[in-house]
Amino acid sequence: MPAENLITIPARKGKAARVKKGQRVKLINTHGSQVVDTWAFNSDDLTEFMSMEYTRVALGSILPKAGVTLVTNRRRPILAFLEDTSPGIHDTLCGPCDRYRYEQLGIAEYHDNCTDNLWQAMRELDLTPPQTPAAWNVFMNIPVAADGTFTFEPPLTKPGDYVVLRAEMDCVIAFSACPQDVVPINGPDCKPTEAHFEIL
Amino acid sequence: MPAENLITIPARKGKAARVKKGQRVKLINTHGSQVVDTWAFNSDDLTEFMSMEYTRVALGSILPKAGVTLVTNRRRPILAFLEDTSPGIHDTLCGPCDRYRYEQLGIAEYHDNCTDNLWQAMRELDLTPPQTPAAWNVFMNIPVAADGTFTFEPPLTKPGDYVVLRAEMDCVIAFSACPQDVVPINGPDCKPTEAHFEIL
Repeated sequence: MPAENLITIPARKGKAARVKKGQRVKLINTHGSQVVDTWAFNSDDLTEFMSMEYTRVALGSILPKAGVTLVTNRRRPILAFLEDTSPGIHDTLCGPCDRYRYEQLGIAEYHDNCTDNLWQAMRELDLTPPQTPAAWNVFMNIPVAADGTFTFEPPLTKPGDYVVLRAEMDCVIAFSACPQDVVPINGPDCKPTEAHFEIL
Repeated sequence: MPAENLITIPARKGKAARVKKGQRVKLINTHGSQVVDTWAFNSDDLTEFMSMEYTRVALGSILPKAGVTLVTNRRRPILAFLEDTSPGIHDTLCGPCDRYRYEQLGIAEYHDNCTDNLWQAMRELDLTPPQTPAAWNVFMNIPVAADGTFTFEPPLTKPGDYVVLRAEMDCVIAFSACPQDVVPINGPDCKPTEAHFEIL
């Protein structure tokens, strides 16, 4: 992997990029325990975006696995999930963290959050999302018990694990290296780290 | 139950109503096998609405049970779930049906759908939703297997089963008697029926 092509998603922050139909994006869990909230928007019409609630219906599953295609809020393919070196656990259930989440977790001062990271990353491309869609929480490990309850667990990934996605339409893809440091979704030591991606 | 207070959600159609904070809403599965997609919007600011992705995080569960409170996209209480005479299975995973869903199911002509029903029901109150939030699919039975896959099954309810919800803020509540008649979520005979609600 030529390091010069790597784009950094800074620890606790977001990064977005334009991707043409057919291009592949390799998203790397560089340090091994980082959740990356992932969004994709149709670059010709940002009101069409990757949707977890319609993707679940399309897949008949709460867990997208390599080989499937994620769809938009118009139920059209937007990201094909081509490869996965991780154990294949990528949450679709949990809305992205936001100021309200950290307020409720008892953080009094401003806390970085995936929602603000999405908006900031889009702003760097002179774009404004039409809303904050539910994110695809890549590498996030939310095991669901038979009674429907779930817990927030550390990722099952190791350093360098990656997923490869292919754009099925021209799109803007946005990532946030989740700044969650209160519950252990970014590892038992609750230390958010950077992650990387590469447009292939 | 005084029948004169019952409001009909016509088969395959939607109905919305304004509810004051503290009022209770009894939603009745009149004929026993009807899924009712349910939305709630803050009546002072429609951009705040009941959110499945943040409710799941608040509950640590994909299945709200009587005794919990559903929250908005700002993670504030909007509907307290007070009572439930049904077996307690009410889906939060599946986005509401729409024209795209029926097109993909092979229906060539227009098909009633929960998304259009939401917008029409709001229009009858001279309101426009800011978007189509994921609905709370009351009475909808979507069993999730240990591997994350799920199936679309008939409801486990019987005629007259009901839930009672209490508004935790002034809100507009909208219901759609889901017109799904291709997959058996409204019973094995795929016959959508009316349902009813009452503001107590």
